[in-house]
Amino acid sequence: MISTQDWTKSEIDSVMEVAMELKRARAMGKPHAYLQDKVLAMLFFFSSTRTRSSFEAGIAQLGGHGAFIDSTTTQISHGDTAKEIGEIYGRYYDGIAIRQCDWGVGNQYTSDVAAASRVPVLNMQCEVYHPFQILADLLTIIEQKGDPRGKTIAVSYAYASSYQKPLSVPQSLILLMTRYGMNVRLVRPPEFKLMPDIVQQAQDNAKQHGGTLEIMDDMDAGFKDADVVYPKSWGCWLTTEDETESVEIGKKYSDWIADERRMALAKPDAIYMHCLPADRNIEVTDGVIDGPNSVVYDEAENRLHVQKAVMALTMN
Amino acid sequence: MISTQDWTKSEIDSVMEVAMELKRARAMGKPHAYLQDKVLAMLFFFSSTRTRSSFEAGIAQLGGHGAFIDSTTTQISHGDTAKEIGEIYGRYYDGIAIRQCDWGVGNQYTSDVAAASRVPVLNMQCEVYHPFQILADLLTIIEQKGDPRGKTIAVSYAYASSYQKPLSVPQSLILLMTRYGMNVRLVRPPEFKLMPDIVQQAQDNAKQHGGTLEIMDDMDAGFKDADVVYPKSWGCWLTTEDETESVEIGKKYSDWIADERRMALAKPDAIYMHCLPADRNIEVTDGVIDGPNSVVYDEAENRLHVQKAVMALTMN
Amino acid sequence: MISTQDWTKSEIDSVMEVAMELKRARAMGKPHAYLQDKVLAMLFFFSSTRTRSSFEAGIAQLGGHGAFIDSTTTQISHGDTAKEIGEIYGRYYDGIAIRQCDWGVGNQYTSDVAAASRVPVLNMQCEVYHPFQILADLLTIIEQKGDPRGKTIAVSYAYASSYQKPLSVPQSLILLMTRYGMNVRLVRPPEFKLMPDIVQQAQDNAKQHGGTLEIMDDMDAGFKDADVVYPKSWGCWLTTEDETESVEIGKKYSDWIADERRMALAKPDAIYMHCLPADRNIEVTDGVIDGPNSVVYDEAENRLHVQKAVMALTMN
Repeated sequence: MISTQDWTKSEIDSVMEVAMELKRARAMGKPHAYLQDKVLAMLFFFSSTRTRSSFEAGIAQLGGHGAFIDSTTTQISHGDTAKEIGEIYGRYYDGIAIRQCDWGVGNQYTSDVAAASRVPVLNMQCEVYHPFQILADLLTIIEQKGDPRGKTIAVSYAYASSYQKPLSVPQSLILLMTRYGMNVRLVRPPEFKLMPDIVQQAQDNAKQHGGTLEIMDDMDAGFKDADVVYPKSWGCWLTTEDETESVEIGKKYSDWIADERRMALAKPDAIYMHCLPADRNIEVTDGVIDGPNSVVYDEAENRLHVQKAVMALTMN
Repeated sequence: MISTQDWTKSEIDSVMEVAMELKRARAMGKPHAYLQDKVLAMLFFFSSTRTRSSFEAGIAQLGGHGAFIDSTTTQISHGDTAKEIGEIYGRYYDGIAIRQCDWGVGNQYTSDVAAASRVPVLNMQCEVYHPFQILADLLTIIEQKGDPRGKTIAVSYAYASSYQKPLSVPQSLILLMTRYGMNVRLVRPPEFKLMPDIVQQAQDNAKQHGGTLEIMDDMDAGFKDADVVYPKSWGCWLTTEDETESVEIGKKYSDWIADERRMALAKPDAIYMHCLPADRNIEVTDGVIDGPNSVVYDEAENRLHVQKAVMALTMN
Repeated sequence: MISTQDWTKSEIDSVMEVAMELKRARAMGKPHAYLQDKVLAMLFFFSSTRTRSSFEAGIAQLGGHGAFIDSTTTQISHGDTAKEIGEIYGRYYDGIAIRQCDWGVGNQYTSDVAAASRVPVLNMQCEVYHPFQILADLLTIIEQKGDPRGKTIAVSYAYASSYQKPLSVPQSLILLMTRYGMNVRLVRPPEFKLMPDIVQQAQDNAKQHGGTLEIMDDMDAGFKDADVVYPKSWGCWLTTEDETESVEIGKKYSDWIADERRMALAKPDAIYMHCLPADRNIEVTDGVIDGPNSVVYDEAENRLHVQKAVMALTMN
């Protein structure tokens, strides 16, 4: 699984069902060791809090073992190619999870490993997609709002000063939520465009599944009467690949913050979502992220359950 | 468990009993998988040999899985707060163990994670406490000396040149050994004081449990007729927080070494203890640490057994 | 196991048999949890792709747990000695695997840990030996060629520019393959000698087991009519320990490459072997390493099976 696009809608429906079943099983202390002594490689080229822990805890709860592999401890810098990693890890492990987010590199790398691997390759985030985050988001929306069809979600840019983040979260959001019949608003300043072919795919998804995709450049308008708001930062990678320039351009939009005033524009029971970590009081106020509409911890928790579902469904 | 003070004496008695039972079970090859498919997060902000290995091996022997997490591989530097770590790890894992020893930071951090976590938080050492080391020490003393009541232990400063170590070991020693009715001698140069409220708590513990706490500044007098000597280095953190100054002050006491002459002052069957690693031939002579009175390897081994006991008692 | 020399021929025969049995078991999905809840320490002073993953996946498939320990995360730099590591890890773990390849250091370190340990110590490569690589190579040769007796293997130097590699692979090859009655050709430029006592041991092995050891300095002649070619780079450690000088000397032999022309000199069904990673198009052409005679992925895979065999045979 490199993108949710690789799976049919009914396959994703199954993931949701199995995830809910596994969530209940864990809450009730019911054993669910479906992957006894199976082993997952978790290869990271980028730091991680939630992704690593939810995969490693998840496979262990399923009776298996996750090997956390920091790429700098390997011989990849001594010449191991993507093909070799796919061939060799594919023979040792029962699944290979990869996080490689470098712009123009990560998606290709992950695809190259997958092409050479005899076992499933799970994309733990590349520069284009973040499928497991978005599956967790979908589960959270279903838990909070029931059937997503016809609900409005604002996938909005927000300002951050910490670092220039990938496009993978908003891109995966517009791809999947349109498939679930939501009215998706993509809200961003003109310099913060997403990749055109992804936007086109999301348009197609919307058409096919009765959703909509609307592109907006006004954060207030985006929040207006929304059921779900998902404001987060990303870099203006399509405008410039120069980090310093990207930082400068971002500063023009430092008022793109998710604050109490904006939350009040959305429906009263709107939920606030974020994949974390957030730049507190820059990207979102403490009042909003710690407030009654925030579901960020449920969202983080659901990473565990959807990933266990996908592993249980693919690594057997 | 952040400090042994968090547990009643009878709870700690239970830890000792379960630890001995698990030690026997392992020696006899008797399965003891009380934590099947349970997962422990082990979050380290500081290097570790014994702590990491005894926790990771321990949870594996109990049928579970330990995830070794070097904090630099996480997104804590990208903004994950202590509260978020507590909330999120608390949902993924069945227990969270933390080592954060930075002066004025570690204890607060560990407490903040604990406040937000729904699962037990185990303190793998902060700048104030090192509870699992001291539980292992207590088990070792009981194994070697039987009932600790009325026995004399010298918790002494010794000189080291490698780095300025935390106060957590001597502080945790005087807190727990006084609760077990020992005559505790805290021996240190005037600049190497421990935290006053910890010393006060230890005084209270002594009063309540029939032990004593005597503060001395002469290493020879401290060793005289002792049953247990525990000479180790620590930084003069309460005199100065400046590393360089601390190093300079320490140099005045370079003759505070555990050598054969001093060991001869203690009882003939006195045991020499150290949490390791020691600065060999600076803090302690090879003759003493490798000699017949040294129990340092049993002490290190007992880390495994007490930690397995606490995990088995809390993570189920 | 520090070198294959530590084991009798019939013990190594057993390793081969158990390895094949475990390989079949895994292919058929037959459970083989012979090391339930056993724990292996994997201590690395040097980067690794195959070694780490095959040990960690292997012990997990056997029902146990492997702890990947980067030496920089331990307190070895704070003073933990080899003896202390042996004593303490030996009490926590059921086996200790070590990779320490520093010239003049690694083999001694591994031996010192082994001397102090009560559990098996497995050498994951030192500067002298790489026993598990060579066991995997032997298994691969047996799979590909049947009985190795009388077959010709060319253990040849090849040029590489990435870094000065240890002697452990060619040295372990000439030691083991002579014990299996092969005609071993050691092919290298005059500056790239192996350690004299190892060459002598290999001579003795050949005499005892009906093999031969021939030393040559012409790569073409080495390949001529060989059944197995194993051309790989190593540093001229016995000529100079100076990295820069070693690099300069190596450049004289930049035409020592395994290419299609040379492969044509070997038997038509000769197999090309390499422990990976290779310097592509410097040490070996893509055409050869990705070609029909290459068995490099089987060779890498067999690491898993032989290591599981040794663990199952020693860690129970």
